[in-house]
Amino acid sequence: MAKRAVIIGGGIAGIYVMRNLLEKREAVKEDLEITLIKRENEGWVSVCGLPYALRGWYEIDKVVINDPKFFQEKGVDFKTETEIVQINTEDRLLKLKTGETLEYDYLVIATGRKPALPDVIERSTLENIFTLNTMEDACKMQAAFSSGDVNNALVRGRGIIALQAAVATAANNIKTTVLAGPPSLLPGSLDPDMGDMLKEWLQKKGIEFILENKPITALKAERGRVKSVVIGQGGEIEVPADMVIVSMGMRPNIKLAVEAGIETGDTGGIVTDNSLHVKKEGCHLKDVYALGDCIEVIDGITLRPKLNQLASTCVVQANVISDNIISDFTGNPSLYSCYMPCMGPVVAEIGGLNFGSVGVTSEAAALAGIKTISGKATKLTKARYFPGAKLLTMKLIFDAFSKKLIGAQMISEISVSDRVNEMAVAIYAGVTAEDLRDVERCYDPSLSLLVDVTVDASQDALGIKSVY
Amino acid sequence: MAKRAVIIGGGIAGIYVMRNLLEKREAVKEDLEITLIKRENEGWVSVCGLPYALRGWYEIDKVVINDPKFFQEKGVDFKTETEIVQINTEDRLLKLKTGETLEYDYLVIATGRKPALPDVIERSTLENIFTLNTMEDACKMQAAFSSGDVNNALVRGRGIIALQAAVATAANNIKTTVLAGPPSLLPGSLDPDMGDMLKEWLQKKGIEFILENKPITALKAERGRVKSVVIGQGGEIEVPADMVIVSMGMRPNIKLAVEAGIETGDTGGIVTDNSLHVKKEGCHLKDVYALGDCIEVIDGITLRPKLNQLASTCVVQANVISDNIISDFTGNPSLYSCYMPCMGPVVAEIGGLNFGSVGVTSEAAALAGIKTISGKATKLTKARYFPGAKLLTMKLIFDAFSKKLIGAQMISEISVSDRVNEMAVAIYAGVTAEDLRDVERCYDPSLSLLVDVTVDASQDALGIKSVY
Repeated sequence: MAKRAVIIGGGIAGIYVMRNLLEKREAVKEDLEITLIKRENEGWVSVCGLPYALRGWYEIDKVVINDPKFFQEKGVDFKTETEIVQINTEDRLLKLKTGETLEYDYLVIATGRKPALPDVIERSTLENIFTLNTMEDACKMQAAFSSGDVNNALVRGRGIIALQAAVATAANNIKTTVLAGPPSLLPGSLDPDMGDMLKEWLQKKGIEFILENKPITALKAERGRVKSVVIGQGGEIEVPADMVIVSMGMRPNIKLAVEAGIETGDTGGIVTDNSLHVKKEGCHLKDVYALGDCIEVIDGITLRPKLNQLASTCVVQANVISDNIISDFTGNPSLYSCYMPCMGPVVAEIGGLNFGSVGVTSEAAALAGIKTISGKATKLTKARYFPGAKLLTMKLIFDAFSKKLIGAQMISEISVSDRVNEMAVAIYAGVTAEDLRDVERCYDPSLSLLVDVTVDASQDALGIKSVY
Repeated sequence: MAKRAVIIGGGIAGIYVMRNLLEKREAVKEDLEITLIKRENEGWVSVCGLPYALRGWYEIDKVVINDPKFFQEKGVDFKTETEIVQINTEDRLLKLKTGETLEYDYLVIATGRKPALPDVIERSTLENIFTLNTMEDACKMQAAFSSGDVNNALVRGRGIIALQAAVATAANNIKTTVLAGPPSLLPGSLDPDMGDMLKEWLQKKGIEFILENKPITALKAERGRVKSVVIGQGGEIEVPADMVIVSMGMRPNIKLAVEAGIETGDTGGIVTDNSLHVKKEGCHLKDVYALGDCIEVIDGITLRPKLNQLASTCVVQANVISDNIISDFTGNPSLYSCYMPCMGPVVAEIGGLNFGSVGVTSEAAALAGIKTISGKATKLTKARYFPGAKLLTMKLIFDAFSKKLIGAQMISEISVSDRVNEMAVAIYAGVTAEDLRDVERCYDPSLSLLVDVTVDASQDALGIKSVY
C-alpha cells in the first residue's frame, strides 16, 4: 500500500532525507510518496558556499545545486513557497498556511535554525543590517558591497560564519571590525591558544577585533541607514559602522514542534532517541522524526546533549532517518540503523587560513569533569627543501587516564580536512596517544614529513621531548 | 658504566636510530657512546628527494639535510668513508676494512639495500647506464641530462623509483620508454584497475610503455656508450636508448649479516623478533638489532613475512630499537617497546598524479587466502562550483566476513597523504565498511564534499548503489 513521507524543511537536512528516500525507494521498488515542503522559492542551495561567493570567488547563484524541477522530475512532490502552520501528530495531519491539510504516514521535521539576534538589532528597521543564513541574505549583502558607499563594517560574533563574513567584507575593501567576547575565537572548536593563532592571522589581514564582553546597546542612523554602533553599558564606545552583520549563533527553529507538544531539551533543540524519533508526552513517536539544526544531539565524548548545527551532521542523520522509514515501510528490520553520539568534525577556510577540530575542546572536557592531557606541535607538512612547504599546528587532547584521543585541533594554510577525518576515525576507534605516535605514516618528501606533526603532538602529550 | 652503541649504515634507518639515541640519551642522562659507520662521504641525505631534483624542482644538494659535522658536534662518533668487513657477535667486535677493530655493547645493522640488476646490465661497463639509489647516482644522471646528447631513455621497472625516474627523464625532454611486465604499474601497491589509471596519465604525458614480460637480452653500444637495448628471447625488439635506468626492485644488503651467521628469511631479508633483535643459531641476540631495508617484516594483514623498504618503516623501527637499547642500558623495562606487524602506508607524486596505498592489494589478499569485497568511487574533493575542484578515485578492500578494512588505494591530482594516514589508522583500529560509511566527516565546500568519496566507496563495497 502506498504511504506518504512528508519532510518539513528544504535545507541540507530535508534535502538529504529526500535524496536518500528517492535512492532507497528505487532500491526496494516500493510505492513511497515523498513530499518536501519548503518556505523559500528555491531547490537545493549550498548555503555554506555563500561566504566564498561574497569574497568574489564565484557568482552567488553557483551555490544553487538543483532547482525544484530537478526533484519534481524524479517524482518528488517538491513544494516551494509553502508553509506549515500546525502539526497534528494524533491524526497525522499537517495544516498549511493556506488552510489546506496534508496527511502523512511518516513525518520528518527539518525546520533548521534561525539567527540569534540582540534585542536592539531585532527591533531595528534600519538598512544595512544583515545576517548570513540564506541566499537572499547574501544577495542583499552583495548589493550593499556593490553600492560602493559602505566604508565600515561591524561583525558581531566569533563563530565560523561571523569570521567568514568578516573576511568577505574585508575582501570588498571595507574596514572591518569583529565585536565578540570573551576574547577567544571559535570557542566551540578551538582552545584559546589555537583561536589566538587565527585572530593574529586575521589581524595581519587588517581585520580589527573588539573582544570584550560588550553588548550592542544602541544603533545610530543617518537617512534610515545604520551609521554607527554603540557598545557597552557605562563607558560606551561608538564604533562607526555603515554595515552591521550579526552572527551570534543560531537557535533551533522549534516553534511548530513545540506547538505540537514535541519535547525539547535544555539546549533548545528537539529531543530524539537514537533512531531520531521525536518524543511527546514521555513517549517517542514511531512515525515522526527530526534532524539537523533543530535537534539536540549527544556529544560523543561528554555524552551530554548539545547543538551541533553542521551540514555534515545533517547528512549522517538523514541516512539514519531514511533507513528507518524504509525499514518500517518494507517491514525489513535489517535496514534499520542508529544515530551514534556526535563527534562534530568541523573544518573551514577563513581568510586563507584553515582550521579543523573534532571531539571536545579542553574547556568542554573540563566542564564535563574529564581530566585531560594535551600535546601541541608546529611543523612543516612536507620536506623543508620543497618549494611551498607550509606550517601546520596540531593540538591533541587525550583522556588523562586511558590516554585515548578525545579531541584534535589544527591550523594551517593548507587544507586540514583529511586530517580532521583521520582524527575523527581515531576518536571513534578509541586510538591512544601511544598508537598515534607509533602507527606508521606514509612519506613522500613532496607531500609529507618523515615524522609528522601528529607524532610530535602525541609525544608532547606523553611528556616526551624532542631535542630537534 | 659507559657503553657503546654502534650503528652500521648511514641511510634513514641508521640516521634515525642515531637521532633517537641522542634524544633519549639526553633524557636519561646516561653515558652511552654512539658510533655511526657510513661507507659514503656524506651525512644525512634524503634520497627520496632525488627524483624531484632531477625534474628541476631544486638543486640536488638540497637533499643534504645535515652534514657529518652536525652530528659530530652533538657528540656522535660519525665515521664516513668507513667500511665494516666482519661482524663477530661472540666477542662483540667489528672488523674494519683498514684492519682496525671496534668493540660494541649494542649493534644496529642498518645496511640497507642494493639494486637488483639483470645480468646483462650487471656485467656491462657501458656509459649512461644508471640506477637511482644515491646522491652520486643522481649527480651522474644529471650530468648526462646536461650533456644534451641523450635522446632516448629506457627505464626498466614499474615501481615508484622507476616511474619517478621516467618522469624525470621526460621532464628533461628525453623520449622515455618504460619497460616492465606483466602489465600493471606499482603492483605492490595498486590493483591493476588503479595502476592503469596511472599508466594512462603518464602516457598522456608522452611516456611510452612496453609492458610484456620481456627481459633485456643484450645492449648495443657506440663509442663505449649504450645505444640501444635488445629485449625478448625469440622475436627480439631493439629499442633505441642512449640512457638506461634500471629500477627493478631492491635486494636487502645482507652480506655482512649472513657471514656473521645471522639468519635471513625466504624474502631475502634479515629475520628479527618483534623487538627487532636478529637471530643466530635459533636464538635471538639480545645486543644485536637490525632494521630498515635489510630486514623482513610481518605484513599487518596477511601476517606473512615481506620486504617493506620504505623510509617511513625505518623511522618506526628506529623508535623501537632506540627504546629497547635505552631500556636495556638503564635497566628500565617501562621504556621497552615492540614493533607491530607492518601496514606499509605509501604515497608518491608521479608526474603530477599522486597515488597512495596502505594494507593489502586484492592480489596479495587472494595469495594469502583472504576473501575480500571491494568498492570503488571517483568524486570531486570539493564542491563542484569551486574553482580547481579535482577528482579522486578511492578503492577500498574489506575482509569479506568481518567487513574490516584491510586495504585502501587512491589516485588524485591533489595530495592523498592524509587520506592514506586516515586509512592506516582505520585498518589499525579494525574499522569496518559500515563504520567508514557512517562516521561523520568534516565539510567545507572549499575543502571537501558533503558526502566524501570514502563513503561512496564503502557503500559500493556493501552493495549499496547511489542513483546520483
